[in-house]
Amino acid sequence: MSGEDVTFYYDFSSPYAYLGSTQIERVAAAHGARVRFRPMLLGALFKAIGTPVVPMATFAEPKRRYYHRDLFDWARYWSVDFRWPSRFPMRTVAALRLALAAGEEALPRVSHALFRAYWVEDRDLADEGVLRQLAAGEGLDQATVDRALLPDPQVKTALIALTDEAIAAGVCGAPSFVVRGHLFWGQDRLDLVERTLAGWDPPATF
Amino acid sequence: MSGEDVTFYYDFSSPYAYLGSTQIERVAAAHGARVRFRPMLLGALFKAIGTPVVPMATFAEPKRRYYHRDLFDWARYWSVDFRWPSRFPMRTVAALRLALAAGEEALPRVSHALFRAYWVEDRDLADEGVLRQLAAGEGLDQATVDRALLPDPQVKTALIALTDEAIAAGVCGAPSFVVRGHLFWGQDRLDLVERTLAGWDPPATF
Repeated sequence: MSGEDVTFYYDFSSPYAYLGSTQIERVAAAHGARVRFRPMLLGALFKAIGTPVVPMATFAEPKRRYYHRDLFDWARYWSVDFRWPSRFPMRTVAALRLALAAGEEALPRVSHALFRAYWVEDRDLADEGVLRQLAAGEGLDQATVDRALLPDPQVKTALIALTDEAIAAGVCGAPSFVVRGHLFWGQDRLDLVERTLAGWDPPATF
Repeated sequence: MSGEDVTFYYDFSSPYAYLGSTQIERVAAAHGARVRFRPMLLGALFKAIGTPVVPMATFAEPKRRYYHRDLFDWARYWSVDFRWPSRFPMRTVAALRLALAAGEEALPRVSHALFRAYWVEDRDLADEGVLRQLAAGEGLDQATVDRALLPDPQVKTALIALTDEAIAAGVCGAPSFVVRGHLFWGQDRLDLVERTLAGWDPPATF
């Protein structure tokens, strides 16, 4: 199924999106597929569909404890670094705009850097100085960073449009993956994503 | 790691527990492990830990839609039958007592029959006549069924004790699996269960 696309919806605010971001290109490449990176405003999506903006804050204590441990289980499962950040939840709108302002070609690389900054290096993605530093590290010029931080109305609108696209696709959380119109939510669904890339079709009717 | 145990906490009320029930013995057997079947009152556990008793009823519409489809995705993934029942949620306390009254040896077989009756055959597990029929089909005698339906105080107490055991183990939903003290929640964590049976250890501290 070479030439296939996986659309990957994410927000840097989600630890599971970070975990998914470390795997999706490997999964896609194994099937000759390309990943379409789609940053979105997860908080705005939650508001639009009527879900608590910080779901974990609404969980019962044993459930919160389980999910916390679960993140570390998966990080070890995938053999990737993971740290619970000192700031959570995080306001990621500027970081998402920065990823978009970087342009289609730099988007994956800059997204990985921003995910890593928050979920491994415990950096503050809401801090303009931190974002400028990270952007410089990724070779982005000052004008690009300014477009993200002003924000440039085009960048602002583009992020809203991607969020609306996610809502229209039925996305209800992050990370979400779409393959041939099939939606999968969660990095714990990557095996379903992989099978679908290999030609498997989930049931169309149910 | 032969001789190892997997403790499997479940309630017939959960579609994901049904899906997990179709796989856990295969996963365990592949590593020479035994499955300890542990029926529990999921509603009582939810009440005790402060979770909505029918979580799906509290979900935003796109999230409910996603989970509904997700169940059929997994059913096809595992190649097992699955039907959304005409009665949901289901009061399963009598069915759980029946499984327990059947005794340790018959427990797995009777549990599979009850899961299948609800999640494949759309039977009413709250109906005494249906339970008597299912019990007869599994070769249980009348006295056993009576102990479940009266209920016999011992059977009643045993089910409460297993529910308390699950709560103490940190269980926050069904299905849950415990291997060497490591808790995993969800049939989408079976790969973690399998790796743990193969000797892998999830991180102890985080």
